[in-house]
Formats: sequence, structure tokens, C-alpha cells
Amino acid sequence: MNMRIIVIGANAAGAKAASKAKRINPTADVTLIDRGSFISYGACGIPYFVSDTVADIKELMSTPVGVVRDAQFFKKVKGVTVKTNTEVVSIDRGTKVVHLSETTTSVKTSLEYDRLILAMGSSPFIPNIGNIDLPNILTVKSIEDAELLKNCAISGDSACIVGGGLIGLETAEALQQKGMRVTVIEMQEQLLPGVLDREMAFLVKKQLNLQGVRVMTGCKVTGFTGNTAVEKVCIGEQELPADLVVLAPGVTPNVELARAAGIEIGITGAIAVDTRQCTNDPDIFACGDCCETTHLITGNKVHIPLGSTANKQGRVAGINAAGGEATFSGIIGTSILRVFDINAGKTGLTETEALANGFEIETVLSPAHDKAHFFPGAKPIILKLIAEKSSGRLLGLQAVGEGAVDKRLDAAATAITFHATAEQLSQIDLAYAPPYSAAMDNLIVAADILKNKLIGHGRGISPHEVKRKFDDDDDFVLLDVRSPAEHMEIGIEGAKLIPLGMLREKLDELPRDKEIIAFCKVSLRGYEAQKILDAAGFKNTKFMDGGILAWPYLLRGTNTMNELL
Amino acid sequence: MNMRIIVIGANAAGAKAASKAKRINPTADVTLIDRGSFISYGACGIPYFVSDTVADIKELMSTPVGVVRDAQFFKKVKGVTVKTNTEVVSIDRGTKVVHLSETTTSVKTSLEYDRLILAMGSSPFIPNIGNIDLPNILTVKSIEDAELLKNCAISGDSACIVGGGLIGLETAEALQQKGMRVTVIEMQEQLLPGVLDREMAFLVKKQLNLQGVRVMTGCKVTGFTGNTAVEKVCIGEQELPADLVVLAPGVTPNVELARAAGIEIGITGAIAVDTRQCTNDPDIFACGDCCETTHLITGNKVHIPLGSTANKQGRVAGINAAGGEATFSGIIGTSILRVFDINAGKTGLTETEALANGFEIETVLSPAHDKAHFFPGAKPIILKLIAEKSSGRLLGLQAVGEGAVDKRLDAAATAITFHATAEQLSQIDLAYAPPYSAAMDNLIVAADILKNKLIGHGRGISPHEVKRKFDDDDDFVLLDVRSPAEHMEIGIEGAKLIPLGMLREKLDELPRDKEIIAFCKVSLRGYEAQKILDAAGFKNTKFMDGGILAWPYLLRGTNTMNELL
Repeated sequence: MNMRIIVIGANAAGAKAASKAKRINPTADVTLIDRGSFISYGACGIPYFVSDTVADIKELMSTPVGVVRDAQFFKKVKGVTVKTNTEVVSIDRGTKVVHLSETTTSVKTSLEYDRLILAMGSSPFIPNIGNIDLPNILTVKSIEDAELLKNCAISGDSACIVGGGLIGLETAEALQQKGMRVTVIEMQEQLLPGVLDREMAFLVKKQLNLQGVRVMTGCKVTGFTGNTAVEKVCIGEQELPADLVVLAPGVTPNVELARAAGIEIGITGAIAVDTRQCTNDPDIFACGDCCETTHLITGNKVHIPLGSTANKQGRVAGINAAGGEATFSGIIGTSILRVFDINAGKTGLTETEALANGFEIETVLSPAHDKAHFFPGAKPIILKLIAEKSSGRLLGLQAVGEGAVDKRLDAAATAITFHATAEQLSQIDLAYAPPYSAAMDNLIVAADILKNKLIGHGRGISPHEVKRKFDDDDDFVLLDVRSPAEHMEIGIEGAKLIPLGMLREKLDELPRDKEIIAFCKVSLRGYEAQKILDAAGFKNTKFMDGGILAWPYLLRGTNTMNELL
Repeated sequence: MNMRIIVIGANAAGAKAASKAKRINPTADVTLIDRGSFISYGACGIPYFVSDTVADIKELMSTPVGVVRDAQFFKKVKGVTVKTNTEVVSIDRGTKVVHLSETTTSVKTSLEYDRLILAMGSSPFIPNIGNIDLPNILTVKSIEDAELLKNCAISGDSACIVGGGLIGLETAEALQQKGMRVTVIEMQEQLLPGVLDREMAFLVKKQLNLQGVRVMTGCKVTGFTGNTAVEKVCIGEQELPADLVVLAPGVTPNVELARAAGIEIGITGAIAVDTRQCTNDPDIFACGDCCETTHLITGNKVHIPLGSTANKQGRVAGINAAGGEATFSGIIGTSILRVFDINAGKTGLTETEALANGFEIETVLSPAHDKAHFFPGAKPIILKLIAEKSSGRLLGLQAVGEGAVDKRLDAAATAITFHATAEQLSQIDLAYAPPYSAAMDNLIVAADILKNKLIGHGRGISPHEVKRKFDDDDDFVLLDVRSPAEHMEIGIEGAKLIPLGMLREKLDELPRDKEIIAFCKVSLRGYEAQKILDAAGFKNTKFMDGGILAWPYLLRGTNTMNELL
């Protein structure tokens, strides 16, 4: 008899697993079951459908050549049988049967399996707060959500997004583009927690503010009010008008079916799997948003659901279920988003995560153009590179800016995967021509600065620390070594100007008994100033990481990245 | 006494070496000598100045904040003394003296050194052919060249570029944008030899032709004719009108000064150095275009001059000359260019290079959009990924297309540097969101196909081999598994249509005794067809690598990548 493979959940991971299983084992009977009516859609594209960037919802469900991936497509092209609108009610592992219920007719059936693949995905986390069931309080997950959200996005109305993570911010932009007045409410003290450190997240917040989106951090939504639909969002005593609320505080893995069947749930709350994507039942595999995975830097189990990871896991689960052999080792937490022409993302650990995991670290903030500075269309990006202090091993990169941050993240993700040190990163033969990067790519520059810091040649201090010194009235000199023209145009209040080219001649204007912190636009000249002062016998010198471009606080003058670089 | 460091050559490598040496050893007297009047300019930007993409030549000589890097800048900011218009006539290693001649006045002087850094760069190779000294036969190297070339670029006139490499093609575009009628003449049978394999180079040639640039490959320029200036380019008996000729057949390292001083010249003809950038004289270092380096995949010495490598080497030479300790291990031959909206480049070895170096290899051609296919602005790119057959170790990536190829090259360069296998590349946690890639990035897809081929699940055949079969009247079936609509619009003459969705039902239309080669647009469906035929018991099945998108020959219908994808 042919091997019977059942896949529960027909989106990214499940669709991939089913197709791959059939290719590996062409005589197998592969059945793909989903409780929804739409399958194999790109949920990541929903914000772009809402904003009309993607005109037709069908595009999210189509192959690159425009064929809709429906049940017939899977039957004809993939040789996979699809059952939509079908809920799996329970899994009987003893008899190897799944019990089904047709969602529209409630007709009950059952199906036997030899191998089962769980790909039930995740659901938006719904906080337990008052009146959360009011109409016009929506989530962003399914095709149905997408259409509802688009219909509710009425120009001039107010929208509140609960949650300042990736989906929250993408949705904020989409709704603002539809003409809504948008407020993002984030419980933590910064946007994109877990993705960016605070000073990097601040750059994203600045951009949202400039685009007219209100951002409230450190605010916990406590309830909603309204009659026939939501009217207000409550944050303690405060009330915000809201014609539409989008809940985006995160997702939870869909594990109830697995849990009820005695499948092991991991420490993260998602299904536990080994590197073969196999659960504690040797005939049952799991992949995608419903399962956890291993973080390759910390070794910890994590639940970071992403379409890219789901596809990789689906392939592995499909191969193994069909009798082949494949492994998926884990992730390093890479994520990225575009919001209002700002690209922001990370790979590896943030500073916060690295410290929480017990690493002793060195960090670098390095702003520069993404292309040769003379090439038209060159745009600023800021990198934050993090390495282990003792070994120089790279732990993470964050990147924010209007320019190409994805390229630097991908190269860094690869380097981090292979345990590269700052030294090794600084030598990689990256692709150079003026339309693509400066002769020294942003990554190479950041790695070189990191090397300087690791061996003690460069002593950086974060903008955050400098701000604290001002706030604490510390007795120090913040030394602006830019040109007088640059200094006049925009600056940091309280800084003293000595252009770098004058520094060697004007050393006596500086006190030898005080800490001196030099900066310029990106702190390359700041670093050079530190070296000049060191050579002149000054004992307590530093440069400010990332220069004025990475200063996330109030500036004298304007302060968008675009205007700065 | 302070250490005296002399650097000969004040461009990328030399300027970097001098600045770094001074920072490492602030008490050192660092002198930077150049025979030209302009220093520290971005020679890579010259084509963009010629095309008016970069308006002011000063931009190529400026820092990102707009300060011109002249002698005064180096003195004031870097603490480095610059002597321009100064030729180093000879190096006396015994007495550690360099003998100088001021180029405008011919005044002779000499300078003592403790450490010497050679950064004399390279010069355009001037072939030894008749009348090469005629006016309006130019090269592309110096600022003076740039201004001359721009003045000679007269709209409506004819220009011939001798050499179809990176600089030749960038210059071809620049002159065409100035309104010239441009012909590129390349001696080898393809454009970009050493950068791309033939089928990939063909895609670039197609684009040049579409833009109205004439490309002649396999043509050797034998001479020039003209009276007061060049008028014609001779290719044997053939004569081409030319009001302007640009010589871009490659560069040669400037080593005469070093050779005369007994510095060892390597097998490539460039200065031999160790990983410290030290020559055979422990007090003399070399960096940039005048020295050779190690290819990290083959272990061979190579001379592949690039601004990115020059900067890395300059840093290392500067540190070591100043008494520090640094190493540069080598390169993997990464290069890239943009020409008429096509991005094209490589990292690691091409197929040709891999075979020449004795590797047994597997290759993949994988075309796809550079972003999620539904995202506006997604553009096609074709990857060619090459791995060692026995180990699966990646040897090289080529990438051509309108979309983001640089990002894939940089990630692959990093992976190749760390000896990644196709399996490892397929698992890297690259940054995914619809504006940046499909859920499965092009690199991941290419790696997965490569894995399928390495274990024998997928059996590819190159478009080149298929063309040969047609030319040889082989008895085989080329099976188009696209939709009837796709097939009608554009196709390969001689192919039989059975859409993939019909294939399982129409197996009896195919002969079981003949070779069957399936293809679609990108050959993902082609691969699926091969798997369906395998499962149905067909014994001799393959898919055509890269599908119709990678077919570089004549097509039924139109054939630009843009119109295809």
C-alpha cells in the first residue's frame, strides 16, 4: 500500500511540506488539510494589500507566473489532495487516525495516516482585556482579515495599532497610506523590542513621527469602549479615539490539537521538534509557526515565526515524513521590515539580548552612505555591530536607514552563522563598484572600527552615555570636530567646536584634566581626534559612537537622517 | 628619532596606508608621494563623471562630507605630508633612501626612510599595435583621462571601446549616454571574460544590444588609421569608423621601480607580498594594484586590482609599516558592474575557472524575482551557483539581472569564504520581508536545487547542451510544461507543449525510449515534470537549467528578461 501522508495546515510550511513529500515519494498519497477556504497565501503580503500596494488579493495566493495555488493546482501540479474548510478535531496516535469536521456542513469523517505533518501555524495573541470583542477590533493574519481590514480603512478615521512590532508597524504604514490618522501603542519603552536596541528603534520612531504617525511607547492598553463598534482605546485613565483597532501584540503557536494528542510542547509553548522536525512521536513531524526551533548563537529554544523559516522547515519535514533524510539546524533571529522608506532589521543578537545571555560585548555604531557617496541615490544607513569582547566573534548586526540594509544583514547573517570574528568580516571580498557600496563597504568599516575598539585603540562611548553625562552635569568636554559650517547648521547643545584640521594647533584650548569625548558626523573624524589627543598626551579621551548621525536625542537644528547625511 | 615612513602612490591603497600608519604611530613622520597632481580620488567613479551622472570631478576627490582630500587636508587632518608632482626615480635599499624628481621643475631631491610602502597602482595595458599614439585614443585611469574623455565624448560621433571587461562596459554606457554611437570590441568570444561564464555574459550582451550598443566578440583590433586623430579601428581587413577610441583591455601593475630596486616580482607580474603585505625586504611593504594577492579558493597568486582590495591591503600595510601587526589573507575574485540597468557580477570561481582548476563540479541556473513576486518593483535576476561535486562545497556564484544581485553576491562571498556547502547555504537565516525577497530567497532556492542535483534527484542539463542537441539533430523531446498562454507568447522552436497540470494525464503522448528534457519559465516546473516522469517509470529524463529565462539563444517571440519575467 502507498504511504499515506497527512499535512495539517496548508500555508507556507504545510504547503511546502506536502509538495516536497510528494516529490520525494511520488507513490505516496499526500493529503493537505486546512480549516480555511484559502490556502498557500503569502500572509506577509497582507499589509501591502491593505495599502493598495498590491492591488489584487489573488496575487498573494499565486505562483510567480500568476497561477492561483488552489486545491486544483495542488492536485494537478503537485499531485497533492487538498481538503479546505476542514477542521482536524483530534489526532488518535494509537490508531494513526485524524478525525475531521467539515466546517461549513459539520460532517464528520476520519483519515488514516502513516506519517503526519503538523503545520497549524500561529494565531494573533488576543490580550484578555475588556470589550476586546467589539466590532472593528481586528487582527492581521488571514485573507479574511485582510479584506475586512481594507474595508474598515476609511480615510480620515482614527486607527490604533496595539503593538509596535513588525506587523504593527507595517500595518500602521498601510493604514496611514489609506488616509487614516494612526497611533501605534507599544507596551514596552521602545518600538520593535527584540528586533532593535533602543537607540536604533528611536530612529524608526523618529521616521514614524515625521510621517505623521503618533507613537506611544511604555503604554499598556487596558480596555476599549464603544457601542456598536469600538470608539475608544483606554490606556489607564487616558482615552484615545479609535474607529479601528488592530491587535498586533504578537502571535501564539497553534498547539492545542498537538497537546491534546500528547505531542510534546516545548519550553516556548510551541511544539518541540528535533533537527529532523520530528516531534516526540516518530511518525509525526511539525514545521512552521506552530513549532519552536533552536537559536544557533545561544543554543536556546525559541519561537520566532517567519515565512522564511517556515519554508525551510516545511521542506525538511516533508522530506523526512516521506522517508528521506534532511535536517534544519536553527535560526539566528534575523528579521527586517520596511516602514515609510526606512529599512530596519537585525540578525543575531541585539545588545540587550547579548547581555541577557551573559556575553561580555563590544559594540559599534557606524553610519555611512549605502553606495559610493558620490553616486546619485546614495542613502544613509546606520549599522550597529556587536561582538564578543574576548574572542571578537560577531554576535549581531542591526541596521536602520533609507539605504540598502538588507544586503548588510544578509552578509552578516552568513558571517555570524559561520562564527566569523570582526577580523574575518573585515576581510571579506564583498562586491564593490560605486553603484553598490563605497570601496570600503559599511560592513567592512564597522568591522574595522570594532577591531580598533577590541584592541583598545578606539575608545567609544554611546550617545546614551553622553546624554546621561549631560543630564548628570558631569564635568567633561564634548568636542565637535566637524567643520564650522557643519557645526553651525546642526549640532549637539553643549558641544565645543574645534575642527579636526585645527585640532593639532589648538590643543591648549582643551583641559588635560577632564574627559574629552570627540564626535563628528559619523565619528570617523571623532576617532581620529581621539588618536590625535592620545598622541598629544591627553589621558582620558573617547569618541562618541556613530557621531551626530546616531544621536537619537534633540539636536540644535533639524534631525532627520536624510537631511543629515 | 621619529620613525620615517614613506608611501609611494597617493591613491586608494597609498592614501589609506599613510593615514593608518600615522594613526598607529602618531610620532612617525609619514610622507605620501605621488607623481600626479591629484591624489586620493575614486578612479572607479570616472565613468560616472564622463556620463554626467557625477556632475563635478571634485566629488570623486572628496570625503563624504564634501572636503577635498588634497595635500592640505592630509597635513591638517591626517598629519601626513604630501608631495605631489613628484616622481620616485629610484629606491636605494642599502642606504634606505628614495630619490625624487619634481615632475614640473625636474628638481632632484632624496628622502630617507625607515619603512617604505609601495602603492604605485596599475596602468592601462597599451597593446603594441600600429598608430596607437594617434590623438583621441584614450584610457580610463586618471583624473586627467576623465576630463579628456568627457571633452571628446561628442554626441553623434562614433566611439570604439577596445575590451569588453568591467571598465570597458562602464565606459561604453557612459559614452552612449553622451549620445555617441558605441561599439565594444572584445578579443575573446564573450563579454566579461573571467567575470561571467558564457551563457551569463550573453545576457549582458543582449542588454547592450537592446540599448543600441554594438558588441563584437572574438575580434582582435590590429591597428588604427587616421590623420590628425584616430578615424578608423582596424580588425584585420575590416575597418570601423571611430572618432574616439577607449583602450580598456586590462591593466598592468606598476612594478618597474620595485623591480629595479630588487624587490621580488611574483608569478603574476605584480609585486610579491606575504600576508603582512611585506615584500622580500622586511622594511618595504606593498599594497593595492601594484601587488599580487592570494586567491583563497585555489590558493593561486592572482592580480585582480580593485579599490575594495586596495583599501584593505593599504590598512594592513600601514599598520605593519608603523610597527603594528595585521594580516590580509586574500580574495575570492568578487567583481560587479552595473551597465544599462543590468547588474552583473560574480564571487568565487566561474564554471570555466573551476574546471580549469581541476574541480569536478555541479552547477545550477536559477532565475527568479529579487523580491516577493507580488511586490511592486520586483525584478528578475538569474543566479548561477557552482559547487564541488564530491563535497557540495560552494565554489562560486554569478548573478545577472535588473534586480538586486549585489546582495546575493555579498552573502555568497561570505559563505564561500567560510567554505560553506550548498546544504549550509540553504539554511542561512537571511532577512525576509516582501520588499526584500521571496520567503525563500533566490540564494536558498538555488542552494536547494543544487542539493537536489548533488544527490541525483534533479538532473539538469544546460541550455548550451540542449542547443547542441538541436544543432546535432539528436533524437530527444524538449518538453515545455508551461501554460498554453505562456507557450504561445514566447517559446523555444522545436519544443513540445504539455502543461505541467496535464502531464500526469498525458504521459502516453511521450515516448518512453527517448531522452525527455522538461523546462518552464525558470525550470521549477521543469524539475517537477522530471520528478513526475521519473515516478511514471520514464528512464531518461532531465530538466533544462534555468528554464526559458536562462535560454541565451534565439526565441520564438521577444526575449528581454524584463518582458519574460
